Formats: sequence, C-alpha cells, structure tokens
Amino acid sequence: MKKHNFSAGPCILPQSVLQKSSEAIVNFNDLNLSLIEISHRSKDFVDVMEKARSLVLEHMKLQNKGYQALFLQGGASLEFLMVAYNLLEKKAAYLNTGAWSDKAIREAKMVGDIVEVASSKDGNFNYIPKNYTIPEDVDYFHCTSNNTIFGTQINHFPKTNVKMVCDMSSDIFSRQMDFSQFDLIYAGAQKNMGPAGTTLVVIKEDILGDVSRTIPSMLDYKVHIAKESMFNTPAVFPVYVSMLTLQWLKDLGGIDQIEKINNEKASLLYSELDRNSLFKGFVANHEDRSKMNATFSLTDNHFKERFDTLLKEAGINGLNGHKDIGGYRASMYNALPLESVQVLVDVMKEIERIA
Amino acid sequence: MKKHNFSAGPCILPQSVLQKSSEAIVNFNDLNLSLIEISHRSKDFVDVMEKARSLVLEHMKLQNKGYQALFLQGGASLEFLMVAYNLLEKKAAYLNTGAWSDKAIREAKMVGDIVEVASSKDGNFNYIPKNYTIPEDVDYFHCTSNNTIFGTQINHFPKTNVKMVCDMSSDIFSRQMDFSQFDLIYAGAQKNMGPAGTTLVVIKEDILGDVSRTIPSMLDYKVHIAKESMFNTPAVFPVYVSMLTLQWLKDLGGIDQIEKINNEKASLLYSELDRNSLFKGFVANHEDRSKMNATFSLTDNHFKERFDTLLKEAGINGLNGHKDIGGYRASMYNALPLESVQVLVDVMKEIERIA
Repeated sequence: MKKHNFSAGPCILPQSVLQKSSEAIVNFNDLNLSLIEISHRSKDFVDVMEKARSLVLEHMKLQNKGYQALFLQGGASLEFLMVAYNLLEKKAAYLNTGAWSDKAIREAKMVGDIVEVASSKDGNFNYIPKNYTIPEDVDYFHCTSNNTIFGTQINHFPKTNVKMVCDMSSDIFSRQMDFSQFDLIYAGAQKNMGPAGTTLVVIKEDILGDVSRTIPSMLDYKVHIAKESMFNTPAVFPVYVSMLTLQWLKDLGGIDQIEKINNEKASLLYSELDRNSLFKGFVANHEDRSKMNATFSLTDNHFKERFDTLLKEAGINGLNGHKDIGGYRASMYNALPLESVQVLVDVMKEIERIA
Repeated sequence: MKKHNFSAGPCILPQSVLQKSSEAIVNFNDLNLSLIEISHRSKDFVDVMEKARSLVLEHMKLQNKGYQALFLQGGASLEFLMVAYNLLEKKAAYLNTGAWSDKAIREAKMVGDIVEVASSKDGNFNYIPKNYTIPEDVDYFHCTSNNTIFGTQINHFPKTNVKMVCDMSSDIFSRQMDFSQFDLIYAGAQKNMGPAGTTLVVIKEDILGDVSRTIPSMLDYKVHIAKESMFNTPAVFPVYVSMLTLQWLKDLGGIDQIEKINNEKASLLYSELDRNSLFKGFVANHEDRSKMNATFSLTDNHFKERFDTLLKEAGINGLNGHKDIGGYRASMYNALPLESVQVLVDVMKEIERIA
C-alpha cells in the first residue's frame, strides 16, 4: 500500500534519490564496491563532497561571494555550541520562537552573555514576535526560520547591521530569499536535504577569527574550511544522499520551482483547515503559519478515534503532533507530493461528512 | 570483476550487511517506507538503536557491569575533546603511538595538563613503547589500541589503578580481551563496525560527574546516557548498518571466532612478507605488528609499476600506504575474507617470480 509520509523529520525524500542511494550501497559508480566501503579520500567520494558543497551555494546564489558550504556532524544541536564558540566574544542577541531556539540559547549562555530580544514563550510559541530591537553592540543575532514543533515560520527577517545567524533546519531550500542577508546558515540534513547524520553549514568566511578563545579543532569552522569539509572522515552516506537530493532539486527547477509547489500544498491544507469546522489550527496569526509544518487539532476529540482510523486506512504516516502541543502536524517538506496533501484533505472532508 | 578491498577505512563490510541495508533504503521492515524517512522516535528505529547498544555490551561481556553503549556523532576526533571535557580536571596521561594519539593529545591540552608517558615518535611510530610509568595522580590514562597509519598494535595493556581510556577505532571487535579493564572505549564506526558517521562510546557510568566544569550538552556523556543515545537525532543509517554488522558478528560466533580468522589472515600475510625478499615490513618489532593493518614496502622500487599493475589485475583495492610512511598497507578488517589475503600473497609471489 502506498504511504503518504507526513513525518516531521527524518522525513520523506524523493523516490528517485532513495532508489539511487540504495543502489550505491551495493555498487557505487560501477566500481563493484559499495559507497560506504571506499576511502573518503578516493576521487569518487571527493567528487561527491565537492558536488554537494557546490550545489548548496548554487541553489542559494552564494557562489563567489565569500561563502563556504560545509557538511559536518552533530546536527543543529552541535551548531548551537559551535556558533557561540566561533562568533561569541561578549554578547549575542537571540530571538526565541520555540524549543529549538530555546536550546540554542541555553548552549550559547555557557559561552557568553545572551540578550533574548523577544520571545513567544508566553503563547506556547504559537506566534512569531515582531517589532523587537536588535542591540547594535552584539556579536551576532540568531533566529530559527521555521519552528517544526509549533508550525510557525519567519516571513520577514529583520534588517540589522549585526551579523545574522539562522537555523534553517526545517525549511532550508523550500523558499526563495536573499540568502546573502545571512552570515551563517545551518541546518540538520534530515528535513529537506537528506538523511539524519550530516549538518549543512553555510558561512561567510570573513566573519571568522574575531574571538579570542582557542577553539577545539572539531568545533572550529576555520579548520573545517581549510580541510574542505574533510578534517575528519565525513558522514559519507548522508552527504551522498544530500548531494542527490540537491541535484534532484536542481533538475526540478530549483528553489523557485519547489516554492511554487510548496505554496500550493500549504494553500490546499490551510484552506481546508479554515473551512472545516471540525479542525482548528494551532498558530495564532495566519501570517506566521509555516508552509512546512501545519499544526492543528480536532475541535471535538470524540472524533479522534474515527479520524485516526481514516488516516491509517488512507496510508497516512507521521501525522501525530509533537508532545509539546499535541494534536496533529502535517509536515509538507519538499519531497512530499501535492497528491499526499490531497489525500489528507479528503480524509478531513470525510470525517466531517460522517461526523 | 570481484574486488578485494584492503581499504584502510571506510572499509569492507560483510556482503550480507550491504545487501540488507540497501534494501532498507527502499523498504524498511516491510513498512513501505525507507529507513531514512521515518521518525527516529518510531518503534521501528528505537528497536534498532536498542539492539545495537545491547549487542555491543554483549560482544564485550559488559552487560550488567555498569557500562553504557552510545552511538554518537563526530568520529574519534570529537571524542578526543569529549573525553577531556568529561574526565580531565587537572592532569591526564597519554601514550603517544601515532598520528591519532598525537591529535588526541593536542585536543586534551586545551582542557588540562597532559603528561606524555611515552612516545614512539622518534621512530616515526614504528614500534609500541613499553616499560613506561603511569603517574598515580592523573585523572586517566589514554592510549590508542591500534595505529592504522603505521601498522602497530598494543598487545599488552598496562596494569594501573587510574582510569583507562582507549581509542579502539581501528581494531574494535577484532580480538578477545578483558574489556572491563577499560573505563571508556571509543571507536569511529568505519572500520569493523559500520559506515562513517557514527561513533561508538562504551563507558563505565560511575566515572562521570567528577569534573567541575559545565559541559555543553552535546559534549556531555551524562546527557547522552540519560537520553538513551537519542539526545538529538542520531545518524540513523550508520547506526542501522552497525547493528547489522554486530549481528553478523554474533551469528558468526562472536569475537572469539573472528579473532581466529583474523589471526589466520595476519599470519598468512606476515609469513609472506618475512619470506619474500622483495618486501620489507615497516614495523620494527614483530610483536608490535598490527593484525588489522600490515604496512610494508618494496625493497627495490624498480618493481613498483609492475607490482601495481599486478595488484590492479587481481582486483585489489585500497592497498596504497598512508602519505606519512608511503609504501603499501593491507588492511585486513573483520569483513575481509581470507581469500582476499591469499590473492594478495599470490601477487607478492608472482612479482618475486618475474622480478
């Protein structure tokens, strides 16, 4: 039975990418060797790493602008620390829009002073704060572009003279923007890019080197840049799958094209959510709704069992909400087809009909 | 053409493991979903993680002895730092047997005082130092059990009252020993265990909590233990392949059985090396020779081109030596069949015959 995979992450990847990476596990590049049993210093793998790094900058239109793309390990969780180690001398400003921002703040506080410029914690993170001021004297400003758990997304990034750092783990490569407004972007691969196990870091090289502390090698972006993202053995398979997914996105027409599709999917789901009186959305303001993760619940929990049965019968997977807010969450990442959203909307209509 | 894969790492894995992991990329556990597109919190993946952790302790006979097995990220290179962060309050002792020990020392020096109890740097690491003294007042003693680059291996670990930490990246699960003599063992997966991208840490829980510093979450073993190795999204695919390889080892008869096979392979190769006057080994003392990585060179480089051609014709892959010592390196990890070593030995005999 065909599955419709709304999993929040690790999440759906393009079928063609899964097929090709499955083949590479038994025979990569017709070498009669597996991708995962060859040296990461071999030409075959160095080509993969270089292609992945170059596709990232190409998609973001950041080529020849002083940016470097790295594929590291440890997820966004290690980046919370690395960002602070590499950039925080005295004070940094953070926008708190959810559990992940909160964790980023907690790690950075071990390294320096943190100013929380605004927070939506008072509303259990059901909105994106606006009209906050970023102090001029901070080392950088940090924000989370999309909040997977709560289903909010930043649609207008602040204009500021300070360095901008953004955790784009859950909406990277999903929408067009001027990526050069950021000095550092990071993202765990396991949403729109690849499998869990590698973390993308895109960094403007000239922002590095300003802190006075000695940075341990594995936490030092300069070390990873100098070694072309191969300071130590990289996560070979996750990097390979990321490269294939980035190539899939390019073949599809790039970020411009996927954004159109993502807009269609989000519009289809949110229209139904607003129309159907059996459901209510979690996010307070429509303008803050995430196009990646739609969070909602039933207005009457008596229908929960029947709704869950219908979901199962339709082959819908991964729709359960995060424990912090409950209800449902439809994650509509790049690789999720419009058809899957239509199946979900049909189930929402069906439960309304029989209710 | 069948390949004989002597790659130093990432390296050969059992064919059955490659086959099964390739299938899991398109359809895992008959879910009609890929292993890499389901939640790491799903029962299907939590079972994988738990099985991998439990097989590790079973192979090492460390069950119910206060040890925990973790699958982290960042390779041994990040462990160099984590070990020091978690255990080093004032002073630690390190044995320097090669490039990786050297790097471990460099990172630890950022955290505290390091006593190098002995070093074989004077011989470009072609032997294992002996008869050194470990000071009683250090927080721990650190050594590297096998030196991939140089082809040496520790055969007698020191007896000491201080905590023992061992980097077993390149010979883990290859030979029987009393693993309970160590308080902390770590190993990048990409030799005897799985693909690059996950790091095994086996730790005696009661050694933690003695340092006064605040440890960042991702570097804190206690955090990872409390979250059962799922503090953040783990490297799903590398952990899965590691679990399959650990199961393969169990089905084969465990460490006792693989040690016999590894002894046979090493004996076959080293006998030829000692017999054949066209070759000389790199390691000074036979007792220090690694059963995982045999390092050698031609006694007359005029035969290099012909030897390299014969290797290629025989389907031998990954025999080039590391740049630090040149020559050749035959890595004979657990999954390498005896047959492959025989093919190499036959080529060594053949070049002698035509020389």
